[in-house]
Amino acid sequence: MKTYLTGMTPTGSPHIGNFFGMMQQTIALQDEKAKRYFFVSDQHTFTSKRDPEEFRKNQRNVMIDWLALGIDIEKTVFFTQSDVRAHTELAWYLNCITPMGLLERAHAFKDKTAKGMESNVGLFTYPVLMTADILLYDVTTVPVGKDQQQHVEMARDIAQRFNHHYGETFVLPEARILEDVKTIPGLDGAKMSKSYGNTIPIFTDEETLKKKVMSIQTDSIAMGDPIDPDCTVMQFHNLFENPNYDMLVDKCKNGDVGFGDLKKELVGLIWEYFTPARERRIKLEHDETYLRECMMKGAVKANEKAEEVLGRVRDRMGLGKHISPLPILNQK
Amino acid sequence: MKTYLTGMTPTGSPHIGNFFGMMQQTIALQDEKAKRYFFVSDQHTFTSKRDPEEFRKNQRNVMIDWLALGIDIEKTVFFTQSDVRAHTELAWYLNCITPMGLLERAHAFKDKTAKGMESNVGLFTYPVLMTADILLYDVTTVPVGKDQQQHVEMARDIAQRFNHHYGETFVLPEARILEDVKTIPGLDGAKMSKSYGNTIPIFTDEETLKKKVMSIQTDSIAMGDPIDPDCTVMQFHNLFENPNYDMLVDKCKNGDVGFGDLKKELVGLIWEYFTPARERRIKLEHDETYLRECMMKGAVKANEKAEEVLGRVRDRMGLGKHISPLPILNQK
Repeated sequence: MKTYLTGMTPTGSPHIGNFFGMMQQTIALQDEKAKRYFFVSDQHTFTSKRDPEEFRKNQRNVMIDWLALGIDIEKTVFFTQSDVRAHTELAWYLNCITPMGLLERAHAFKDKTAKGMESNVGLFTYPVLMTADILLYDVTTVPVGKDQQQHVEMARDIAQRFNHHYGETFVLPEARILEDVKTIPGLDGAKMSKSYGNTIPIFTDEETLKKKVMSIQTDSIAMGDPIDPDCTVMQFHNLFENPNYDMLVDKCKNGDVGFGDLKKELVGLIWEYFTPARERRIKLEHDETYLRECMMKGAVKANEKAEEVLGRVRDRMGLGKHISPLPILNQK
Repeated sequence: MKTYLTGMTPTGSPHIGNFFGMMQQTIALQDEKAKRYFFVSDQHTFTSKRDPEEFRKNQRNVMIDWLALGIDIEKTVFFTQSDVRAHTELAWYLNCITPMGLLERAHAFKDKTAKGMESNVGLFTYPVLMTADILLYDVTTVPVGKDQQQHVEMARDIAQRFNHHYGETFVLPEARILEDVKTIPGLDGAKMSKSYGNTIPIFTDEETLKKKVMSIQTDSIAMGDPIDPDCTVMQFHNLFENPNYDMLVDKCKNGDVGFGDLKKELVGLIWEYFTPARERRIKLEHDETYLRECMMKGAVKANEKAEEVLGRVRDRMGLGKHISPLPILNQK
């Protein structure tokens, strides 16, 4: 059976671009027959962010967001990286078998430092922590966007080096490239992206949603002028599967509808689309007990697997078992 | 009160040069009023060694050697790095606050790669793990040889960066430079060193010791010729505090003694000097229960302190407490 792993960096409120980009596909993977791990890669964020308050908020919210959008903890081991001590320990052992050249060639580091990001050791070595993230769960398949493919290849390379030296220890992971999804336009028509400040958040109040949608940039047209059926507003109608989409296309072409009406209808469409998720989110936000239970369940299952694999690694290297097992494993 | 920390890489049987170099001074520190941590830095060895059998043997032996030579577990928290999970976890967080330039300037990395050692990521980043080793125990003072001073300075630098960004978290450690001890000559008169293959092991059988001592290189002299009182053999008589040393010096000058007799007497001198340690060592080697108890006691105390400091770190960074405490802490 295949084992999938997905990691998610907590970086603030998700927007519609994120949802139709990668989130929706990830959630859909839950219907495939496979083992599944999904983790909040919170320890990775420190390579570029250092605000404790923001961190705390994001770490909690990313969990709530994904649960609300459909991660099912019966189908997916859903956990937080920093709750599993084996990640950083394995990363150290892998550091010792990773040639410097492998990291020096990594795109992400080169790109980020070229953009003037502070060049810290975490930023340089995080592909090794990412490798540990993957190898600790005997993952066969990592669903990723094309830009993340190199990381899976590095994990595979490092796993092979370890296996070659110490004997068969790790499953070799493969990337499964998520299909290129249509680029979601932002409020200004450019690609929706936090860095452009042109996003529509998934979780927001109706008033804000309305303001956002009403501010989508459109051509100024006179009453009765036709509207391009491929304009940003109409792309959204398509994306949110408006049942009247075909009819609206005709109206656009004939000049029978204005942007104001199209936008008003869109607000309702988006609002309804996310209503079940939003309602789950509100419930989750106020149910600390349930959230804690989710975290605990995920942490128990993740630690169980991670300790098994770490034990294999330590054994191969001559380290032997940890002096006592993690207590969390006794709390099942 | 001061807190001392000493780390010892397990790299095979100690020799007389090690003993009069750093071991004796380290053991003597136990008489000072201070808190003391002493750890076997086994996780560091993977940066250059990868033989599991050799690792296992060395890891066990270094512990027995030091206990035999006088580490007192009532005075010193004596533990193995890989028994304390906080080391690698803290190292990751510190990676994220350590500029690349700091490591690029490190002597040890430059030296080792210049010598053609494989340049792996562990070798590059180990000063950060070493920093974690130090900072986890609120260490004030690290007794080191001059060649290790840079590591303590880096630990101090990284601690300051963390404190500056996240607020007061770490005690700033200081190096205490161990006095330059007289260079101990090896069998060939050059500095005693494993890499020259000219060592006299501390723990060996009498026959081997005899062979080693008899093989100390000396000038060929005729009977009745004087002997240089500063020759290697006489340096050893001085080092092992032969009560007849002054008399022997006279005999050397007057040609009243030959190298054969001097060497025979030296064998007895060295054998006796290490007899108490040797006897303790033999006992320890056969007392798995006691050894396990030592390891456990050390691990409990070390984990207790390390978890306290790691907790402080996690709190500052926004991570919060580990989902459950280490069980080892409940076994005291």
